[in-house]
Amino acid sequence: MNKPFKKLLLAAVSGLIAVQVSAKDIIHDGEYYFVEAQYKDAWQKEDKQVESKLAEIRKKNGGKRPNILYVLIDDVSFGQMGKPALNDVMGIKTPNINEFARQGMSLNRMYTEPSCTPTRAAFLTGRHPVRTGIKEVKVALVGEGLGKNEVTIAEVLSKAGYNTAHIGKWHQGDIEESYPHNQGFDYAAFPLHQQVQLALMSPESARANNLLGWYNGTQSNDMALDKKFKPNGLVTGVEAKKGGKAREIDLKAGETWTQAHYERMNERYQRQTIEQLQKLAKDDEPFFLQYWPLYPLNFVHPEQARSRNGGFMADKLEVLDDWFGEIIAEVDRLGIADNTLVVFMADNGLMYHYEGTSGMSQLIYRGGKTDHLEGGVRVDAYVRWPGAVEGGSSAADIVHVSDLFTTFANIAQAEKYIPRDRVIDGIDQTALLLNGEKRGRRDWVYIYENEVLKSIVKQEWKMHLPGPGMPAAAAGVYNILRDPREQHKQIGHSLWTGASFQDMAKRHMMAIMKNPHNKLGKGKPYVGIENLRPETQETIDTFMSWH
Amino acid sequence: MNKPFKKLLLAAVSGLIAVQVSAKDIIHDGEYYFVEAQYKDAWQKEDKQVESKLAEIRKKNGGKRPNILYVLIDDVSFGQMGKPALNDVMGIKTPNINEFARQGMSLNRMYTEPSCTPTRAAFLTGRHPVRTGIKEVKVALVGEGLGKNEVTIAEVLSKAGYNTAHIGKWHQGDIEESYPHNQGFDYAAFPLHQQVQLALMSPESARANNLLGWYNGTQSNDMALDKKFKPNGLVTGVEAKKGGKAREIDLKAGETWTQAHYERMNERYQRQTIEQLQKLAKDDEPFFLQYWPLYPLNFVHPEQARSRNGGFMADKLEVLDDWFGEIIAEVDRLGIADNTLVVFMADNGLMYHYEGTSGMSQLIYRGGKTDHLEGGVRVDAYVRWPGAVEGGSSAADIVHVSDLFTTFANIAQAEKYIPRDRVIDGIDQTALLLNGEKRGRRDWVYIYENEVLKSIVKQEWKMHLPGPGMPAAAAGVYNILRDPREQHKQIGHSLWTGASFQDMAKRHMMAIMKNPHNKLGKGKPYVGIENLRPETQETIDTFMSWH
Repeated sequence: MNKPFKKLLLAAVSGLIAVQVSAKDIIHDGEYYFVEAQYKDAWQKEDKQVESKLAEIRKKNGGKRPNILYVLIDDVSFGQMGKPALNDVMGIKTPNINEFARQGMSLNRMYTEPSCTPTRAAFLTGRHPVRTGIKEVKVALVGEGLGKNEVTIAEVLSKAGYNTAHIGKWHQGDIEESYPHNQGFDYAAFPLHQQVQLALMSPESARANNLLGWYNGTQSNDMALDKKFKPNGLVTGVEAKKGGKAREIDLKAGETWTQAHYERMNERYQRQTIEQLQKLAKDDEPFFLQYWPLYPLNFVHPEQARSRNGGFMADKLEVLDDWFGEIIAEVDRLGIADNTLVVFMADNGLMYHYEGTSGMSQLIYRGGKTDHLEGGVRVDAYVRWPGAVEGGSSAADIVHVSDLFTTFANIAQAEKYIPRDRVIDGIDQTALLLNGEKRGRRDWVYIYENEVLKSIVKQEWKMHLPGPGMPAAAAGVYNILRDPREQHKQIGHSLWTGASFQDMAKRHMMAIMKNPHNKLGKGKPYVGIENLRPETQETIDTFMSWH
Repeated sequence: MNKPFKKLLLAAVSGLIAVQVSAKDIIHDGEYYFVEAQYKDAWQKEDKQVESKLAEIRKKNGGKRPNILYVLIDDVSFGQMGKPALNDVMGIKTPNINEFARQGMSLNRMYTEPSCTPTRAAFLTGRHPVRTGIKEVKVALVGEGLGKNEVTIAEVLSKAGYNTAHIGKWHQGDIEESYPHNQGFDYAAFPLHQQVQLALMSPESARANNLLGWYNGTQSNDMALDKKFKPNGLVTGVEAKKGGKAREIDLKAGETWTQAHYERMNERYQRQTIEQLQKLAKDDEPFFLQYWPLYPLNFVHPEQARSRNGGFMADKLEVLDDWFGEIIAEVDRLGIADNTLVVFMADNGLMYHYEGTSGMSQLIYRGGKTDHLEGGVRVDAYVRWPGAVEGGSSAADIVHVSDLFTTFANIAQAEKYIPRDRVIDGIDQTALLLNGEKRGRRDWVYIYENEVLKSIVKQEWKMHLPGPGMPAAAAGVYNILRDPREQHKQIGHSLWTGASFQDMAKRHMMAIMKNPHNKLGKGKPYVGIENLRPETQETIDTFMSWH
């Protein structure tokens, strides 16, 4: 098909999609219906205005729907990047992220899940991970992962004609159905596991006292029977195309994984992201590219630190800032800036177990990774889309990471591919992006730690739910505008919020009863990787011995 | 004298001043000499460049030296104003302060003393308050205050030909020699005491449970012999001209002070500041105007709160933001913006005893007013001087509030009026203001709580000094870039910093031995106020009965 004709056809098709109406509505969580009932007419009216604004933007771009670039970095708490005054507080410089923030919108109340796997799953599926059976996926073999029955944003956008690619951290399981190239991505370059394996399980990290007891070089293992209690022989980085086999790269049989491998892997993902950008920008179809760097997670000091802070993660955050600057410069250089929605954020709060030496600290909110406290789930998040999203703006509206699923689908005119047979927690926040602060559509969020509902946030109040058997009166209710560290339980608040929070919990539970959770994917690990090393095969065999 | 001729003469005189060399050098604290020895040539060279830049600015302004407007607000911790993302964290909006910050330089590492009186004294004298005998001045009569032998910035600038005015909080004592119009100000409108009297000792505050036990209306006083244990009959707001008598205004004999009086007083100071600006801008001489609002300190909820936060101080911070916006708009309207250095900051951290209901919280740093912790002494500080100070810039250099004394004197060509017979802690930071970050001249600060040296800060390290009799090894050393809340005492730091901090303490103590502290001013309270109410006279008589 010649290019101009194909463009014309695409424009016509996207016009058709715009007027199609889904047969069934999306199933929301109970709280959404409760709030929607208070705003129905206003939201319907605004949706029409948003739709025509999106159509106008497409028109300006030859009918092409917007590209989406989603950069998600690891374990950085709210305030640690993109906010100049706080750069001085920490002695870390993030000039490129600061500049990106100045060109776009700061989502100052973005909530994630409290840990890597759950946040990524929430984004990919638009659902709280509890609904998909996803929990924090540990390092070492698990034979589990994101189930094939889950519908990811990559599948939604693929069906709608987007080209898709995933580069970097994935962390959705070690079974074949969970791999990104089997979950909607045309191309994927990713490690099978996470940074505990990649950044901590190295001789350098062991000698720097950052992962104790794992490395045999730092202590004798001569009384141990089980040689597999210390995870080893794991698959590292692989690359694959949609539906194809994966190949492990840059590690030979018998070779020890080192900090140098980790740094090469990070540099490779950065390079591959730039390459994918260049490739995808040329296509007629719009693209969805996600780049999930492994940095700033890092546990070894460089030869010469660059940041004033000097912490081993703080330093890599400065490297990552350079790299993000390169990516944005490439978007601009390719001439696709006006038609590319870029979202940059972190997946959850800091690893506070390494506070002090990592250079990252709790800063404003208490807690970090694994925690339902604000420090675990509040992150820096910035959106840039010149011409569509107001530069230099900010929003105090609550947004949950799952909202990106629904919002991306809406912006890509792919909403009809969102499944209608399960609860979708993600709320369409297109109006917030296009019309600015106070156009958000949630003033609440449920916070889980794995399968346990730990907190409910509504407006500026947050209830820490009482543990099993504890009376409701024992629940702490905090005003997080006045008490960002959630330290002062106030009976003055809970006397009236208690009842309202109970109602919210009921609405949430009723939606679950009507729409039961899915099961986690299960299987034999590492199927579909064509060049397993002998030590990996041995690890699989031992693992399967009790399955 | 006709105006053009007077201007010409002033220009000639200021030229003469510029080439004069003081007979004696300023006496610095020991640490300054220690650091200066490492930078002597570079600093001398830069001083020449700074001098000619200042001369250039004067030339652009018809030979007139720059006006100085110093706005100092009360008890606001670092991060609570001027930083947009943190506005969202707290649910407080400070758009005018944010905009002011965007037009000027953010001093992101401004240190104050931990409380109102000491910070103000440090600014006024350029000296740590311990050297002047000044401590926190309590509400109620004390018969003490800033001594007449101290040389204030108003006296320095007055001698150099500046017109001077003080509006708002003063808090330097209740004896005649301490009054602002006896300490260098041509005009002063100020309350004799502070907000415990003005904002807490009202029926409204007592009924809101914010000052317990003081107000007779909330409990019976029928077993009390001493009717003066509860401070009463205190002088409220007065106005005066240099060397003249003060008159109390807006309170009649027998009248109860209420929240309405407090609000009127605040509104009056705002109005008077605008009036002074208009008056002073017309004069041939440059001016030094200081406006020290009593807000945001406030303890009573308004009829209808305006901020999302809703705290009774948070709300007044929004009011103050409006007011500061008005003042800057007036500076701009008067056409004096380019020749007016405006400094806006807070005097110390929040009153954390009211955290929760006040709406102010510790946010980033731990601690607040009265504390040597960063939360007590780190504040938001912004400088605007278009054409001289780079707009939108920031500096992570350490600055102490006393530096403003020396810097203002230098910028006003009044350096020769700085006394040479005592230690001046304030360091000339003109190079930092004009040349930007990394041109600051201190990387340390000593932190006192009243007369006790509690902490020493050097670069990113901070030692909490061990208490009397405690071994030096018990001292905590903190890295405040990595651990802003000073929670993780690290032997890894103190093993080497311990010795260096001991040397710093010695250098500081030797300077004190060579230059002993002055004595606090003492006398009969309220002398020089011409219209004392009968209840005030009775309070003085009782007070004097044991003196």
